[in-house]
Amino acid sequence: MSTSNRPKARLPRGFRDRTAGDIAAERAALDTIRRVYESYGFEPLETPAFEFTDALGKFLPDLDRPNEGVFSLQDDDKQWLSLRYDLTAPLARYVAENFQNLPKPFRRYQVGQVWRNEKPGPGRYREFTQFDADTVGSSSPAADAELLMMTADTLDALGLKGEYVIKINSRKLLDGVLEAAKIDPSRRGTVLRAIDKLDRLGEGGVRELLGAGRKDESGDFTKGAELDDDQIARVLEFTKLGGTAGEFRPRLAKIAGFLDRAGDAARDLDEIIGYCRKSGYEAGRILIDTSIIRGLDYYTGAVFEAQLTFPVKNEQGEAVVFGSVAGGGRYDGLIARFTGQQVPATGISIGVSRLLSALKERNNSVLSPLVVVLALEDVSRSFEMARALRAAGIRAEAYVGTKKFGDQLKYADKRGAAIAVIEGSEERAQGIVTLKDLALGAELAKSIDTRAEWVKDRPAQIAVKREELISQIRAMLGGRGM
Amino acid sequence: MSTSNRPKARLPRGFRDRTAGDIAAERAALDTIRRVYESYGFEPLETPAFEFTDALGKFLPDLDRPNEGVFSLQDDDKQWLSLRYDLTAPLARYVAENFQNLPKPFRRYQVGQVWRNEKPGPGRYREFTQFDADTVGSSSPAADAELLMMTADTLDALGLKGEYVIKINSRKLLDGVLEAAKIDPSRRGTVLRAIDKLDRLGEGGVRELLGAGRKDESGDFTKGAELDDDQIARVLEFTKLGGTAGEFRPRLAKIAGFLDRAGDAARDLDEIIGYCRKSGYEAGRILIDTSIIRGLDYYTGAVFEAQLTFPVKNEQGEAVVFGSVAGGGRYDGLIARFTGQQVPATGISIGVSRLLSALKERNNSVLSPLVVVLALEDVSRSFEMARALRAAGIRAEAYVGTKKFGDQLKYADKRGAAIAVIEGSEERAQGIVTLKDLALGAELAKSIDTRAEWVKDRPAQIAVKREELISQIRAMLGGRGM
Repeated sequence: MSTSNRPKARLPRGFRDRTAGDIAAERAALDTIRRVYESYGFEPLETPAFEFTDALGKFLPDLDRPNEGVFSLQDDDKQWLSLRYDLTAPLARYVAENFQNLPKPFRRYQVGQVWRNEKPGPGRYREFTQFDADTVGSSSPAADAELLMMTADTLDALGLKGEYVIKINSRKLLDGVLEAAKIDPSRRGTVLRAIDKLDRLGEGGVRELLGAGRKDESGDFTKGAELDDDQIARVLEFTKLGGTAGEFRPRLAKIAGFLDRAGDAARDLDEIIGYCRKSGYEAGRILIDTSIIRGLDYYTGAVFEAQLTFPVKNEQGEAVVFGSVAGGGRYDGLIARFTGQQVPATGISIGVSRLLSALKERNNSVLSPLVVVLALEDVSRSFEMARALRAAGIRAEAYVGTKKFGDQLKYADKRGAAIAVIEGSEERAQGIVTLKDLALGAELAKSIDTRAEWVKDRPAQIAVKREELISQIRAMLGGRGM
Repeated sequence: MSTSNRPKARLPRGFRDRTAGDIAAERAALDTIRRVYESYGFEPLETPAFEFTDALGKFLPDLDRPNEGVFSLQDDDKQWLSLRYDLTAPLARYVAENFQNLPKPFRRYQVGQVWRNEKPGPGRYREFTQFDADTVGSSSPAADAELLMMTADTLDALGLKGEYVIKINSRKLLDGVLEAAKIDPSRRGTVLRAIDKLDRLGEGGVRELLGAGRKDESGDFTKGAELDDDQIARVLEFTKLGGTAGEFRPRLAKIAGFLDRAGDAARDLDEIIGYCRKSGYEAGRILIDTSIIRGLDYYTGAVFEAQLTFPVKNEQGEAVVFGSVAGGGRYDGLIARFTGQQVPATGISIGVSRLLSALKERNNSVLSPLVVVLALEDVSRSFEMARALRAAGIRAEAYVGTKKFGDQLKYADKRGAAIAVIEGSEERAQGIVTLKDLALGAELAKSIDTRAEWVKDRPAQIAVKREELISQIRAMLGGRGM
C-alpha cells in the first residue's frame, strides 16, 4: 500500500482512548455506586445505544447545533435512528413499551455511554458515561427524597463524606415567577437556559441573556429573552431565595404575587427536605437553591444537583469550587409522549467522568502489583512460573516477545512491574532464579534520603531457590498481592 | 399531543433491552474473565464507539450488505465516522497512534459493545458485547499459546471445565493448498467464506459454494468460487486433516506438493500446541482442526476457536453441540495499514452473548434476596427501617408509591421480594412489625406436597418486636443476605 493511501491513525474530535489507571478507577467507582443502588432495591436495566429518533425526542439545550446535538443515521428501511444522548429518554420508551408488566413504582438504575454531537472542548467529550437512577410511577415527594438520600449515601461510599451539598429547586416555582411577572411562555426556554449559566457567566452575563442578548469572548452573539427591567429583576431575585428549609419559606413568602400559585411546589420541596431530615440527613447537606435549573427541557417539577464543595484550580489556575457531579429532577410528561397517559417520574444522573476527576483529586485507585517472568532460554519455563504465581494469587505474566535480554528488561520496566523473575541457563542448572525488585528502583528515584534504609531491608536483586519463588515474592510484595 | 403525532414506543430491529437477571449474569461472567486476564498481566484499554471509517477498514465477511455491515454517518466537517464492528480494528489504530510509548509486546484486553449493520435474526443482534485479549509486537508462537491457555483457564473459571475444546488452524496452510492447487488468488475470499460455512451447510453445501454456486432455502443464489473438481477435492481434503499434534503431521505429510511451502505454518502450530502441553494442557483440550477458518478478512496466520462440546437443542429441537464461544487469530498486517511497518499481532475474542446462553444452560446467577418495607402511615418510618436493614447488609427498599395497601402488596410481589415488612398504625402503637414471607408463597405454589412441612417450619406471616426486625429477617432469609 502506498503512503498516500494509508489511513491516518487518529481519533475523531471529542473522542478519546482510556488506559488501565483510568479504567480501574472508573470500575471501582461504578462498583461502589452499583452496590449502594442495589442495596436500595433499584435493579439494573440496559437499553441499546440506538433508538428511533422520534422516540428520543428533542430535549437537549444546545438547539443551535446541527442535528440538535444528536448523532443520527438512516436505517436500510429509511427510518431515522439516533444514538441515545441520555439514559432518561430511552427509559421513558422502555416504560411506555412494557408498562403493564412493570411493578409500580418501577425503580431502575442504568449505567452506560451516551453520545452528544456537540462542540468538543477541554474535558468535554462527545461520548461519556452516565449512571442514572429513576423512580417511575410515583408522584410522591418521598420518591424524590429517596433519590437524594441515595445520592448522599453514594457520595459517602465514594469517600466524599462532608465534601458535598445536594441542592434542590422546582421548575414549578420558576413557572410561578414567570407567570406572575407576565413573561410570555414562548420565552421560557431562553429564560431557563440563561439561569442555567449563572455559575459560568455570573449575574451580569445572565442579566444580558435575560435582556437583549450577549456577545461572548469569541464575538458570537446569543439572542436574549428580551424581558423588561422589572421582569429581569424578578427572575434574578427569585434565583437568590435558597437556603435551608427553615430559611427558604420566609424568603419565598416575601416575593408576593405567585406564592399561591407555586404553593404546591414549595410544599413538595418542604416534604422532600422533611423526609431527608427525619432520616438523619442534616439541614446543611440537602438545601434549597433557587438558582438550580438544569439544562434538559423535559423537567416538570423538582430539580436537583449534587455539588462537590472542595476547591480545585480551573484552567486559568484560579481556585474554584469543584461543582456539579450529578443532577436530575421530575419529568412527569415524558412517558405521556408515547402513551398519552400521564406517568409521574423522577430521576438523578451521575456524570461519571466529572466524578472521576473529583475522585482523582481526592485519592487513587491502582491495579495490584505485577510480576514479569523473563525466560532467557525457554518460554515454557516462564509459563510454568507465571502459572504457579497466579495460582498463589499473584498477578504474573510471562514475556512472549523477542529473546534479547535487553528488550525483556526494558519491557518489564515499561510495564511498571514490581518484580522481574529471571532464569538464565546458569541459574537453571543451579536450581535458582533471580528476583529483581523493579519497584525499588522507582522508589529510590522518588526519595533518595531513605536509600540506605531501603537497601538494607529490600536488596534490589536476590537469587533464591526455585522452590522458594512464591514465598520470596510474597515477602518482597509485602502483602500487596491481588 | 394528538395520538397521531405520538412516537411509538418500540426499538429498531436487531436491538434489545436487557433486565436484571441477564445483566447480573453478564456482570458475573465479565468479572470472571477480567480476573483471569488481569492475572495474566493483560491490562485494560478502552477505545471510543466511533472511529474514522477509513481507520476501521473493510474486513467484515458480509460484503453484500449496504455500508458493508457497518453503521456510518458524516461528521459536521463531512468526514465519515463509523461505529466499531469489532475491537481489533480500533486496537490496530491505537497501537499505530501510540507505538513509541507502548511496552513491546503490548498486551491489552478490552470489553465493549460492537455494532454490525447486518440482517438481524433469532439470537442475532446488531449490537453485542465482545471481550478481546491481544498481544501486539510478538511473532512468537508463545504469544498465541498464551492466549489459548488463558482462554482455557477462563472457561475453567466460568465453570465449563471439561466441556470445551480449543481448535487451531493456520490461514497460511490453506494459502499453501490454494497455491499448490493453482487456485487464483482473487478467489481466496470466496473460498474462505465457503469453508467457514462447513458447520452450517455441511460438505454438500460447501462443495456448491466452491463450485458454481448455491441456492439457499429462500431461493437466494450465492455465486461460488468456480473451482474445478480437482481443486474442490483438494480444498475439502485439507479441511479434514485435523487432530492432536501427533495425528496431524502424518496426515499433513500425505498431502503432497505444498508441504514445503506451508512448513513454517505447520511448525508454528506444533510449537503452539507444544507450549500448551508442557504447561499441562492435555492433548485433547487444544487440537488442530483444519476446517477452522474464521470469517474476518484480516487474519494472516494461526486462527483459533473455542467450542463448547455439550449438547443443546437448536431451533428445530434437534440435539447439536453448543459450538463456538470465542475465536481469533494472528493478523500481522493490520497495523502496517497505518504505519507501513509490519507489526506482528495475535488476539482472541469472546462472544459474550453466546457465552451467556451457554452459562444459562449450565447454571444460574441471581441478585441477593430483597426486602420491601411498606409504610402504611408514614414513609419516613419505611426509610428508617430500610436504612437499618441495609446497614445490616440486607438489600432493602422502602415503597414510595401510592398509599393503598393493596397496591403496596402487589408491588412487593411483582418485585419478587423475599419478605415484606409491614407497619400499620396498630402495629406501630404496639411496637411491632409484621413480616410477610413472600418467597414462601412462591415456594408453596411450586410444590404443594411439602406445604405442611413449610408452614410448620416457616410461618408465612409473623409479628415481631420492632427491635428484633433485623435478627428475625436474617433468620427468615437463612443466610441468603447480600
